[in-house]
Amino acid sequence: MPRLFERVTIAGVGLIGGSLALAARRAHLVGEIVGLGRTQENLDAALAREIVDRVTRDTRAAVHDADLVVLAVPVASMAALAAEMAPALRPGTVVTDVGSVKTRVVHDVTRALPNGVHFVGAHPIAGTEESGAAAARVDLFRGTRCVLTPTADTDATAQAKVRALWEGVGARVEALPPEQHDEVLAWVSHLPHALAFSAVNALLDVDAAFAQFAGPSFRDLTRVAASSTEMWCDIFLANGAPLDHVIAQFIARLDTLRQAIATGERAKLAEQLTRARAARRQWSVS
Amino acid sequence: MPRLFERVTIAGVGLIGGSLALAARRAHLVGEIVGLGRTQENLDAALAREIVDRVTRDTRAAVHDADLVVLAVPVASMAALAAEMAPALRPGTVVTDVGSVKTRVVHDVTRALPNGVHFVGAHPIAGTEESGAAAARVDLFRGTRCVLTPTADTDATAQAKVRALWEGVGARVEALPPEQHDEVLAWVSHLPHALAFSAVNALLDVDAAFAQFAGPSFRDLTRVAASSTEMWCDIFLANGAPLDHVIAQFIARLDTLRQAIATGERAKLAEQLTRARAARRQWSVS
Repeated sequence: MPRLFERVTIAGVGLIGGSLALAARRAHLVGEIVGLGRTQENLDAALAREIVDRVTRDTRAAVHDADLVVLAVPVASMAALAAEMAPALRPGTVVTDVGSVKTRVVHDVTRALPNGVHFVGAHPIAGTEESGAAAARVDLFRGTRCVLTPTADTDATAQAKVRALWEGVGARVEALPPEQHDEVLAWVSHLPHALAFSAVNALLDVDAAFAQFAGPSFRDLTRVAASSTEMWCDIFLANGAPLDHVIAQFIARLDTLRQAIATGERAKLAEQLTRARAARRQWSVS
Repeated sequence: MPRLFERVTIAGVGLIGGSLALAARRAHLVGEIVGLGRTQENLDAALAREIVDRVTRDTRAAVHDADLVVLAVPVASMAALAAEMAPALRPGTVVTDVGSVKTRVVHDVTRALPNGVHFVGAHPIAGTEESGAAAARVDLFRGTRCVLTPTADTDATAQAKVRALWEGVGARVEALPPEQHDEVLAWVSHLPHALAFSAVNALLDVDAAFAQFAGPSFRDLTRVAASSTEMWCDIFLANGAPLDHVIAQFIARLDTLRQAIATGERAKLAEQLTRARAARRQWSVS
């Protein structure tokens, strides 16, 4: 099979960008990989692990001969980075991203890019609470979901190539409109993070020493509270309206549970627990 | 080292009771182990796995010659079970439990037992979303926390032997008053379960199909929603007042986060995330 892309630039060689580089090379999907970054230290780490072939902190030099550019930076930095690289991009270049919020990113990045450069929004739903090139893993995307967020203007060939890239590294690819992606992700990713940060802070308000008694449930609930602060400020703010709605719906549900406990209504309580348990045991996410 | 207890009765050979039996035998802490249960099917499973030496559904026959009785049944059943076995217990017998809620259990079980029988409340903070003898594991308690909940009336020798049992199976044992145990556990166990059940139900209210996009954070948040409904109805109702207070404090914290997102106050948002992240990275619970 011929390679999908000869020259690839990964802008942001962190957990996601670095893992994509490792996996795409392992699967022989790409040729040369250039790492673009802000800090030399992380780029050096990426080079040392042979995640990329060469590195630079010069945005335009990094992308001028690229066939594919992957924006793997915090969502709040995407549009400015796209604008900065725009003058150096060749017509026909495919630009994609890995951002966790899509409506704003797809709109802003598309506007920032020149005609003839094809943007395809993408979001691999993978990750850990770690970050940086040191955390990159060749198998990070195996079996995970990757959502493409095409619009009416998305180039079909570019979309097919980005899909092939993600399928080639083991992801199960699905396409959703950007707005629907953002609603879904507010539920299945942004809400869990909001709950994790809030649970830790609520406990700290009372007595940090309680944490020494934490069992597996508190450990799992709060694991992602160790995630990057910058990245999660960006995500929460970029998806503020859908997330606000989701948090409100979640609190309403929590209040229903709380009410059944406060009034001692075992049947109502059992009904809620039984419903959740049956659904959770069916989901293939465990 | 001589055995701590020659004859042990495990009332409820489930995940916790069964794992304790496996681990105590492996560590040569106990002699004969009798399994007492409600359903022959689970008792047969326990026998088949050699978790216990013999089984019975006759409560008094199970305990009349026991040196140690472990109440490993749902917390709402503890007191009635203690009352049922009371006439058959010999003076000097040690009775302990593994319940997740202590104030009510310690009070009710102590009242139900005859003079000369020594009750020591205990709670190993371990478990998974699985249940039954089939889920028992010899290493379940290794490195986990076990809280003893003595009162002014607790027999010191009995307490020391129960402590030695839990330390012998690898747990880190700590003693707390029952009321403090219940407040701590409302935070580190009952809250996470309440959030897990509520998150699944809130998602089901909107669109169950969203779950197919769930990544690791949603998976970990909701894992314990697959737990036993009966057990968790019991725990929520038995610890209703402390849990209600904890949920209220949690919602207040979640509202603070939500407010910062809604108003776009990045500095306030970053402050909350930074605080939670720093604490979570320090905790040795991951």
